[in-house]
Amino acid sequence: MHYSDYLQLDKILNAQQPEGERLGEPAHDEMLFIVIHQAYELWFRQLLYEVDSIIGIFGQPMLNDNSPELQTIVHRLSRCATILKVLVHQIDIMETMTPMDFLDFRDKLRPASGFQSVQFKLLEARLGLKYEHRYGQQYYLSQLRQPEVDRIKSAEAAPTLLELLNKWLERMPSVWTDVDSPAGTGDSWFPDYRQRYQQSLADVEKGNLEYFDSVFSGKTPSSGEAQPSRSLSPLACRSALFIMLYRGYPLLQLPFQVLHQLLEIDEQLSTWRYRHMSMVSRIIGSRIGTGGSTGKDYLASALERHHLFREIAALTSFLIERRRLPALSVEMESRLGFVVAG
Amino acid sequence: MHYSDYLQLDKILNAQQPEGERLGEPAHDEMLFIVIHQAYELWFRQLLYEVDSIIGIFGQPMLNDNSPELQTIVHRLSRCATILKVLVHQIDIMETMTPMDFLDFRDKLRPASGFQSVQFKLLEARLGLKYEHRYGQQYYLSQLRQPEVDRIKSAEAAPTLLELLNKWLERMPSVWTDVDSPAGTGDSWFPDYRQRYQQSLADVEKGNLEYFDSVFSGKTPSSGEAQPSRSLSPLACRSALFIMLYRGYPLLQLPFQVLHQLLEIDEQLSTWRYRHMSMVSRIIGSRIGTGGSTGKDYLASALERHHLFREIAALTSFLIERRRLPALSVEMESRLGFVVAG
Amino acid sequence: MHYSDYLQLDKILNAQQPEGERLGEPAHDEMLFIVIHQAYELWFRQLLYEVDSIIGIFGQPMLNDNSPELQTIVHRLSRCATILKVLVHQIDIMETMTPMDFLDFRDKLRPASGFQSVQFKLLEARLGLKYEHRYGQQYYLSQLRQPEVDRIKSAEAAPTLLELLNKWLERMPSVWTDVDSPAGTGDSWFPDYRQRYQQSLADVEKGNLEYFDSVFSGKTPSSGEAQPSRSLSPLACRSALFIMLYRGYPLLQLPFQVLHQLLEIDEQLSTWRYRHMSMVSRIIGSRIGTGGSTGKDYLASALERHHLFREIAALTSFLIERRRLPALSVEMESRLGFVVAG
Amino acid sequence: MHYSDYLQLDKILNAQQPEGERLGEPAHDEMLFIVIHQAYELWFRQLLYEVDSIIGIFGQPMLNDNSPELQTIVHRLSRCATILKVLVHQIDIMETMTPMDFLDFRDKLRPASGFQSVQFKLLEARLGLKYEHRYGQQYYLSQLRQPEVDRIKSAEAAPTLLELLNKWLERMPSVWTDVDSPAGTGDSWFPDYRQRYQQSLADVEKGNLEYFDSVFSGKTPSSGEAQPSRSLSPLACRSALFIMLYRGYPLLQLPFQVLHQLLEIDEQLSTWRYRHMSMVSRIIGSRIGTGGSTGKDYLASALERHHLFREIAALTSFLIERRRLPALSVEMESRLGFVVAG
Repeated sequence: MHYSDYLQLDKILNAQQPEGERLGEPAHDEMLFIVIHQAYELWFRQLLYEVDSIIGIFGQPMLNDNSPELQTIVHRLSRCATILKVLVHQIDIMETMTPMDFLDFRDKLRPASGFQSVQFKLLEARLGLKYEHRYGQQYYLSQLRQPEVDRIKSAEAAPTLLELLNKWLERMPSVWTDVDSPAGTGDSWFPDYRQRYQQSLADVEKGNLEYFDSVFSGKTPSSGEAQPSRSLSPLACRSALFIMLYRGYPLLQLPFQVLHQLLEIDEQLSTWRYRHMSMVSRIIGSRIGTGGSTGKDYLASALERHHLFREIAALTSFLIERRRLPALSVEMESRLGFVVAG
Repeated sequence: MHYSDYLQLDKILNAQQPEGERLGEPAHDEMLFIVIHQAYELWFRQLLYEVDSIIGIFGQPMLNDNSPELQTIVHRLSRCATILKVLVHQIDIMETMTPMDFLDFRDKLRPASGFQSVQFKLLEARLGLKYEHRYGQQYYLSQLRQPEVDRIKSAEAAPTLLELLNKWLERMPSVWTDVDSPAGTGDSWFPDYRQRYQQSLADVEKGNLEYFDSVFSGKTPSSGEAQPSRSLSPLACRSALFIMLYRGYPLLQLPFQVLHQLLEIDEQLSTWRYRHMSMVSRIIGSRIGTGGSTGKDYLASALERHHLFREIAALTSFLIERRRLPALSVEMESRLGFVVAG
Repeated sequence: MHYSDYLQLDKILNAQQPEGERLGEPAHDEMLFIVIHQAYELWFRQLLYEVDSIIGIFGQPMLNDNSPELQTIVHRLSRCATILKVLVHQIDIMETMTPMDFLDFRDKLRPASGFQSVQFKLLEARLGLKYEHRYGQQYYLSQLRQPEVDRIKSAEAAPTLLELLNKWLERMPSVWTDVDSPAGTGDSWFPDYRQRYQQSLADVEKGNLEYFDSVFSGKTPSSGEAQPSRSLSPLACRSALFIMLYRGYPLLQLPFQVLHQLLEIDEQLSTWRYRHMSMVSRIIGSRIGTGGSTGKDYLASALERHHLFREIAALTSFLIERRRLPALSVEMESRLGFVVAG
Repeated sequence: MHYSDYLQLDKILNAQQPEGERLGEPAHDEMLFIVIHQAYELWFRQLLYEVDSIIGIFGQPMLNDNSPELQTIVHRLSRCATILKVLVHQIDIMETMTPMDFLDFRDKLRPASGFQSVQFKLLEARLGLKYEHRYGQQYYLSQLRQPEVDRIKSAEAAPTLLELLNKWLERMPSVWTDVDSPAGTGDSWFPDYRQRYQQSLADVEKGNLEYFDSVFSGKTPSSGEAQPSRSLSPLACRSALFIMLYRGYPLLQLPFQVLHQLLEIDEQLSTWRYRHMSMVSRIIGSRIGTGGSTGKDYLASALERHHLFREIAALTSFLIERRRLPALSVEMESRLGFVVAG
């Protein structure tokens, strides 16, 4: 076993063929352009590998909330976030290419474009982005070849991380999440919490209770406004809220880490999108009037729309201070792992 | 001279008085909240110090384009960008504070808010942000004390970096920037360039020529649309364009670095704003209905509006390929420093 | 409550008095020198605050291995590592100061020196560095004032994080760590593991068993070589080994995170020392023959000696493959949290 | 032209074949191990490409000190430093692999090893590292295949960056570097500087003058100690010193940037080596007694020995304060670009 055979370096290091050289008009920076995109694709491959393994574990019907599998999920999500941080940093390298240097070979690449990265679209799809929520659907389709479109559609059709997360949250014990028993009876925690949340609202915030009820009970607000379609059910949101509030209990530590790492990934992905957009705008500029949305416009819109776990992040608005939390019953505490019998 | 006296550590290390402790309800993470904001303010102080020194040099009537002063400007702009990168990274530390940990002391700080950082507003003002271009003017005024408003207004009234940049660009030799002589006569470079730019446009892009003329000649586009007010004059834009295109000539190397570093600062500032916004949204959430714009909305709007040097960045759209550039006359080349006599 | 009062910005922003200005020979970069050292000291204050809080929790006689307190320890250790990463990055800012710029005010600071940072020495002492293990003791004493020496000595005298870690590891259940029962009886895990480790050794590695026994059983190697004094007892090392090997079990997840974060801190501290050393050498150079060790030599030696948790890191050498691990008895598994009754 | 064809993604994304899978004992983390090494190799390819282009320019006999070529060199050196920073950061990803996870597939890779990276050795060789200065020559040869050894030897035999740098520095105008004319005559700058340096030395530093003379005049110190062989000649060192001291002059700005970027590269390379060493030690540990130096020992020694541009960094010790510098003659100033006629 030799290092270069093991890594198949004959393939990796012989896959750089600048168009400029082929056409007899070499441009020094084209090599950088090729290498950095290849490095991105290598890391997208790794991200897909990790996300697929996480989906595989999440899809098991009996995932125990304190099993080593959950720890493995947290570990791999955290690795994805670490990779994404390096990918953000990598943009610094691209920015050493000035606009004039890019112009030297830009026309030769047309119409190839980063929008054609199938792996990146697969990654978004596996995490949970659906075609109908994508920004610029028409443009998106026009950039891909049919087999690639099929591959992405089939990734969307399989259970995504977001859907499995929703199901996993819905499976949590009902005592955390029941909405029915009256507040104060101790049979259920949620009605009590709702009451305390209501009390925490200042006068100008009273309207928030409707928002609270629409998120956690699925009630249509009195305004009758159509709700945007949501990825997490009211039941799943009640679980996630409970986890955030009582994360100190042993049984909730790993579930909290799962939510935390998903937010971390979302933030790194969105930082990447933001810096990528700035970089494109800086190096390419925007030729207005090319008969379609400019690159920058597309990227700016996608930035906002493709934030996959924003419903988890939004729960932050419904937290109340620790000292005002409902005390848990002995039975619940025991279940959560603090009251250890002999 | 002793280290701790020199650094006045008695002041620096005795300036942390958590409200929680004072009120008998200590919250562990309040110390982090204080220390990180103080660290930011220290660095804002340094940034102001550097920017003021740069403005001082830029304001000199006879700044020679190849003098050590210009090198000093580049060096200090680059330092500002380096500081801003660390400030972006520093947000990672703030993000180790979870929403629940922040809730433990959040109410005690009201109505203190990061919007009240005078130094950050001074920094924006010194760089070139005018009150009339600020997003949320009403809110902005309501957060500051009168002496602070006065201080910022006076910073706005003094020549800003953006204004001095405009003047400096306008002072460049007229042979680079004259619009009058007919293309091809060699007396002036610009008409020739405009012709070549026009030729570079694909059919669908033809409309861009109007945009080109509005930027570089101040002509109102045929649509008659009101132009947004601009910070850089057509003359200054022609200079900046010339510098970008011919940056290889000795005399243009430092001017190019000036433009490059300003874009770098703008990008780091805007990355900071973006990550700051995400962090606020993640830790604080948004309580809808508090009778005003939420923190996140304010930050999202400011993000777009406060991009100070975007007019420089936008020039990228008007570059053409190096091999299609007009050749410079011997006289011009000599002036730019390549034809060295004896 | 106003932002600038809350943060005591009157103190923080009025604590910069360059010597150059006072003496009428202003040097532009002295402000940077002051501000960056103050920023470091602010963060050292925060690190001490976190480490002290961790020591406070660790010092509790009955720290339950799955309590929220352990989660708090992991969270705060992880915060310390995040802060240290920013401190490493911050060196980039210092490196924007060239040697010539530093020379402009260097002599005015003498004999003030970064070695005089009491907080950094306190931090090392609280983590576990003892005076007798410090490199360059004489030099170290000569740089500090007596009250500072007293303060550090008293920090060394109190239980350090390293000592408390040792005690906490020693308190783990004896079934993981007993050395006495014969391998294979199932009463104890360690003799079985030792046997498997021995089997894993290739012929040329056979000597490692002696090293294994010296670490885990305190036996003097046959060479009779004096062992360097160790911070972790054989009993504590057996616990740490067990935690590393079986980290997937619920009860061991947080203990594993504790060990992991300590290594992370150690690595960041040592990266900081390394880059600090390079930076000093690059900006200051080394004037040979100044009658003492040069700054760089001191830093290089301290780098190796002040690695506090290296005994944990060294346990890596004694791990064997997961598939060859001894299976745990049902009783042990139950204790570790997998066999959950109904 | 399609994105995936242009980037030859069929090669890049089909070059990952974990040994574990092949042998029916899959280990999840082996994919990461492969991908990260491939990413490193891609970037080494890019670094070699940049360094070779720089060597190509440096090797031109008439490289003008203010030509666009020099600017190109600075730009590409700076890009190399940016890439190296990302490579340092990338170690964070590798560190998400725990020792136990690595053990799951480690044995299957033997004897493949990172020491077998030909590209990294080529990079060191092109920069200037000679076989006779390498640490662990025997080990080094034993790890490589003959054609690889030949390739590296031939890279060493061609003019290296360090050698070309030396020649370029030696070509600087003699008026900066002559040692012969008596101090104060103005015919030469160096004797005057030597005198001022001598005056700047405190009593305990007097011995430094011998060190000064050995570096800048090649004189054997009175101790008669054999000097370690040096890469930069005394003449080249005098040029470099002059450039550092008078970097503000137009003609010296780019040469100063060249030196600065080389130090930056050296620092990033050495930080990479340091963190790589820590990572190896943390993940692999050190099995003592494997019949050779352990990985960590090798890396620690290479760290110090392979610092290629340390002779430039060491010049810092010979700088004196700006206000004590010899004034340059009008003739010299004119040559350096400040006295501009008309």
